[in-house]
Amino acid sequence: MRLDHTPYAQLRPIPKEAVKFQPGFWQERQLRNRLAVSKLYEALKEHGVMDNFKRVNDPAIQRRGPWFTDSDLYKWLEAACHVLPDPVIEPLAAEVVSLLLSAQGADGYLNTYFIHEHREKRFSDLENAHELYCAGHFIEAAIAHRRATSKDELFRAAVRFADYLVARFGPGKIEKADGHPEIELALVELYRETGEKKYLELARFFLERINFRSQQEIQGHAVRAAYYAAGLADYYLETGDSDYLESIKRQWQNMVCEKIYITGGIGGRVHGESFGRPFELPHEGAYAETCAAIASIFWNRRMLHILAEGRFADLLERTLYNGFLAGVSLSGDRYFYVNPLAYNGQPRELREAQRIYERKPWHDCTCCPPNAQRLLASLGDYFYSSSREGLWVHLYDNTAIQWQIDGVPIRLVQRGNYPWEGDLSFQLSLPKSHEFSLFLRLPLWARGYSLKVDGVEYEAKNRAGYLEIRRKWRDNSVELSLELPTVLMEANSRLAETRGSVALMRGPLVYCLEQADNPNLSVLEARLDSARRLTANKTADLGGVVKIQGFGEVPTRPYGPLYRPWGSQRRLEDVELFFIPYYAWNNRDPGAMTVWLERG
Amino acid sequence: MRLDHTPYAQLRPIPKEAVKFQPGFWQERQLRNRLAVSKLYEALKEHGVMDNFKRVNDPAIQRRGPWFTDSDLYKWLEAACHVLPDPVIEPLAAEVVSLLLSAQGADGYLNTYFIHEHREKRFSDLENAHELYCAGHFIEAAIAHRRATSKDELFRAAVRFADYLVARFGPGKIEKADGHPEIELALVELYRETGEKKYLELARFFLERINFRSQQEIQGHAVRAAYYAAGLADYYLETGDSDYLESIKRQWQNMVCEKIYITGGIGGRVHGESFGRPFELPHEGAYAETCAAIASIFWNRRMLHILAEGRFADLLERTLYNGFLAGVSLSGDRYFYVNPLAYNGQPRELREAQRIYERKPWHDCTCCPPNAQRLLASLGDYFYSSSREGLWVHLYDNTAIQWQIDGVPIRLVQRGNYPWEGDLSFQLSLPKSHEFSLFLRLPLWARGYSLKVDGVEYEAKNRAGYLEIRRKWRDNSVELSLELPTVLMEANSRLAETRGSVALMRGPLVYCLEQADNPNLSVLEARLDSARRLTANKTADLGGVVKIQGFGEVPTRPYGPLYRPWGSQRRLEDVELFFIPYYAWNNRDPGAMTVWLERG
Repeated sequence: MRLDHTPYAQLRPIPKEAVKFQPGFWQERQLRNRLAVSKLYEALKEHGVMDNFKRVNDPAIQRRGPWFTDSDLYKWLEAACHVLPDPVIEPLAAEVVSLLLSAQGADGYLNTYFIHEHREKRFSDLENAHELYCAGHFIEAAIAHRRATSKDELFRAAVRFADYLVARFGPGKIEKADGHPEIELALVELYRETGEKKYLELARFFLERINFRSQQEIQGHAVRAAYYAAGLADYYLETGDSDYLESIKRQWQNMVCEKIYITGGIGGRVHGESFGRPFELPHEGAYAETCAAIASIFWNRRMLHILAEGRFADLLERTLYNGFLAGVSLSGDRYFYVNPLAYNGQPRELREAQRIYERKPWHDCTCCPPNAQRLLASLGDYFYSSSREGLWVHLYDNTAIQWQIDGVPIRLVQRGNYPWEGDLSFQLSLPKSHEFSLFLRLPLWARGYSLKVDGVEYEAKNRAGYLEIRRKWRDNSVELSLELPTVLMEANSRLAETRGSVALMRGPLVYCLEQADNPNLSVLEARLDSARRLTANKTADLGGVVKIQGFGEVPTRPYGPLYRPWGSQRRLEDVELFFIPYYAWNNRDPGAMTVWLERG
Repeated sequence: MRLDHTPYAQLRPIPKEAVKFQPGFWQERQLRNRLAVSKLYEALKEHGVMDNFKRVNDPAIQRRGPWFTDSDLYKWLEAACHVLPDPVIEPLAAEVVSLLLSAQGADGYLNTYFIHEHREKRFSDLENAHELYCAGHFIEAAIAHRRATSKDELFRAAVRFADYLVARFGPGKIEKADGHPEIELALVELYRETGEKKYLELARFFLERINFRSQQEIQGHAVRAAYYAAGLADYYLETGDSDYLESIKRQWQNMVCEKIYITGGIGGRVHGESFGRPFELPHEGAYAETCAAIASIFWNRRMLHILAEGRFADLLERTLYNGFLAGVSLSGDRYFYVNPLAYNGQPRELREAQRIYERKPWHDCTCCPPNAQRLLASLGDYFYSSSREGLWVHLYDNTAIQWQIDGVPIRLVQRGNYPWEGDLSFQLSLPKSHEFSLFLRLPLWARGYSLKVDGVEYEAKNRAGYLEIRRKWRDNSVELSLELPTVLMEANSRLAETRGSVALMRGPLVYCLEQADNPNLSVLEARLDSARRLTANKTADLGGVVKIQGFGEVPTRPYGPLYRPWGSQRRLEDVELFFIPYYAWNNRDPGAMTVWLERG
């Protein structure tokens, strides 16, 4: 998302190229992700995704996989471009680019399903066929490729494809949009790259196929709904059309009040991979697709840049560390498609819903793995922004940036041990003194904080969730200490599944109770004693997580009768309970897990 | 279910012809049901169900409705036969019988979908087409018709149809069963009527298409699963094959431990109208189809007659008064298809899931209305049984029976004000003294009881949930007083939706909190104070129900944030709460309702 020129963003992103990760929470994940990108290339090849493109020129090859496999390769290529330069991945990306160029039609069109025997069906089943969805990912990959390599052959191919779409779609032409939004994001970004209004107009044409102006609730397929909302946001960013902004504010509010998990996961209903009714948020039966968490992160990033309010960065952070990150194994190369908030640990689940039992390097519908890879590879884009007033820090981790404010170069080094500890330091270095504001996000979860500039207590204004430090800067240090207690969370009692229950959070992390840490008790029947002490302990387990120890009770005889008079038959025994961050579950033997548990 | 000869039933049903309802809870419902049977005849006609049969001889008529509409008319005819003699319904039934006879093929086959343009597709899509399901309902209606009228033309038609099925299905012939079990029940009953083993063998052939011997869990489409289990029970009843009994005992145990609502409703998952995972029992999102409750009642009746254990009658009663009866309006002529345990009361739900908002006289898939009618019309079948040891009373209401034990005529008059009060009296009259046992069910919910014979305290043996009174009878009275307190119920904490929550029961009735009785509070957010007094008050509302009054709290600001630190922001105000029986909900303006609520 490049917002160099738009007048309708309060913030401008500082791109990942200016951000260097240093040893810490995310650097290790980025390194593992880089290795996973190479592995996924092999898996795509093995499953015939590249062969599908070769088939354009060699009809003897058999097409394999669902009709939208092209998008998997495009997302992979985008992820690959985000990690460049890299000596291993560079030749793989180059090979894929050649493959795509050789497969593109003379008219600019490219899709490996609607060729040969399906040639006549081009654009005939937009609701289901993901045809423009694939096109959108092609354009996004091409933009990422030009940015990463400065080569523009693929970009020019994308422009030809986009021009073909402009020629075929619009009033008086094909008057339909794709059933799966995504092309809209690509077209707005292409407009940003080229300045060509026709791409923005085509995005608007697609967006207006749905009457978002009357929409009160966020609903339907969660990934589609969030990509669509992100598309509306992109259009607003370029045009300032207030109908678009009102709609996405309304949908966002509805989502956070009625239709989101504590993990930031969205789309609780399995059937249709969709948002359900208000408060339809089952735990074991949660869908909460990894791609939906990613889509929500995209959308929240846009809301943040439009409105510069911390609540969007708060939700982005919560989704990143929980609803999204649970989708990726600690090894970085295995992925969940769905992310339940509780799991009974029984292998029979494997048969019933193959996507839950354990993370896998590949899925029959493999949308999530390359999507997770492109998010992790581009995570540097999410940490910092600038505005006329100064520099904004949204996320916390060990990073260094080189940027400039009003033409003055600035270097900022952020240090800490986040998310495990709340003490953060920021070292600013400028070649000459310059006045601007440094905005540090004050997360909603922080129970308190202290702030010092050059060792002296500083009283900052709270600007919609950001602490503003306005002064002249040269070589200065800032220290922010966020209070990071373990907090018992509860939910609105309209959410039936969580009534009388609590979940643990510490900082941005949602915790869970997993069988592996609590081997001899019935995890799903455990009750947490809310009056007793919770202790946070740094450990070397699971890549080095802080575990939380508490006390509670479990029935002495698990699996009792389903219904009984209250208090009649239940005998409880005292137990210690050990919690781990939710993102780290299912990295040992598959076993029962729950985020919410009864409050005693 | 006629079990005159089988050696494998401990109990023999006393048929409804021997049972007269007197003014009380069920008599009024049977009267309203009788009127509803006439109305449904008109609706079936209006929606083309009769025309579909006329179309057999007049291809110019357009077929209307889903492919299984025949079964709706068959179920209606069965209900009509159950209410005969009746001067209004008798000619309607006769007309329908003529219609069916004129539509049946020369080969005995009858189905209004697989004719004319679909003739060649006969038996080609057994998994989906409900073809044998319809045949089963035809046979059952024909048996009911012969029993009610002593005319046997329709019965002979059913025999011809059954013989045609015997000729077409079996080893070396078509080796498949219908996707929707039901024909199995009909074939076993036809075997009971005719003594012809070939029908029992064909039932066995169909039942064995599924490997029930290895099945550990009850699963799949709830109506199908329960009809199937009832079919296994019927086969056991005639053969004593222990594999069949073991399987249904296992499935029953699994159902009551993991997959049933407190109302007796089954099939919690909307998708596939099915049993979900263990403990997948959503409240607002419940399916709990009315037909599934009926199917469970059929199955439990068979279990009861096989094993003579009160737990089956307990579940039958619970399902009858709650999961089933909620499916029928107080007016007796409107029906729910699905029966949620909570409802947010918002009309938008209507658009999303049309089957929930209010009861309707007709549904596009109208399986439930005639099924409810045939159950209500035959309810007399469910009250009493006999065995070698004596007479069994399963259900309580004002009824009188004429029967005989060991050839000695016996008259029993049962009186009380059940289910509102627990005092029951039984007056027995025999022409001569005779010794046998009277078995009175002691419901599991009864907290205590007293029993008197001719005014004298009697110490009865508890025989698997039945109080046995063995003595010589002539003219005697028995008084049974069941303690009927309001009980707070809780659920196994593995059921996430009910953790920290309670539901109220009083006798067999599950209660709920509905908006109409609690107009100014947020019903779904209410909390019941479990330490304060609950008062049961007889009222004239809703046909004369006992309401329960309690005390609790609601948030002063409903619809607060979805997640928050525990105890942080919630302000509560004290309120009175008024509960009504669950079966009576949604008989006033549609509004919010919940069975479970938070325990304070």
